[in-house]
Amino acid sequence: MKTKQANLLKLGLKIKLLRQALGMSQEELALEAGLDRTYVGGIERGERNVAILNLIKLAKSLNTTPSTLLENIT
Amino acid sequence: MKTKQANLLKLGLKIKLLRQALGMSQEELALEAGLDRTYVGGIERGERNVAILNLIKLAKSLNTTPSTLLENIT
Repeated sequence: MKTKQANLLKLGLKIKLLRQALGMSQEELALEAGLDRTYVGGIERGERNVAILNLIKLAKSLNTTPSTLLENIT
Repeated sequence: MKTKQANLLKLGLKIKLLRQALGMSQEELALEAGLDRTYVGGIERGERNVAILNLIKLAKSLNTTPSTLLENIT
């Protein structure tokens, strides 16, 4: 699998695990972050090349930091 | 200044300082990262909402990690 997709998949999985640990649905996370629910779904599946400003919104909604969301990405 | 711009400015400054510490010009960083030189200039001025895949390219070219580039972003 190309590194590009692997990195997006890793980020998506991290967001999904953090969301589930908070007991949030995709809908609730999307609402909290001010993003579209289908866009959040695409991010969690590793299909979206998320930009910084949306990453910041997601991090805030997940009570973490953008840096932590990218921890395992190289 | 809106937080949105402040965060992009912080990221841009961090990239600029790391680039300069490595003695690289914007042109050399852009070439190394496979990005357009004017795009890198825009990132350093805080004018670009950088997406993850480009952030990963920049981090690699600066011998750091995407997570480190976002350290002071909240």
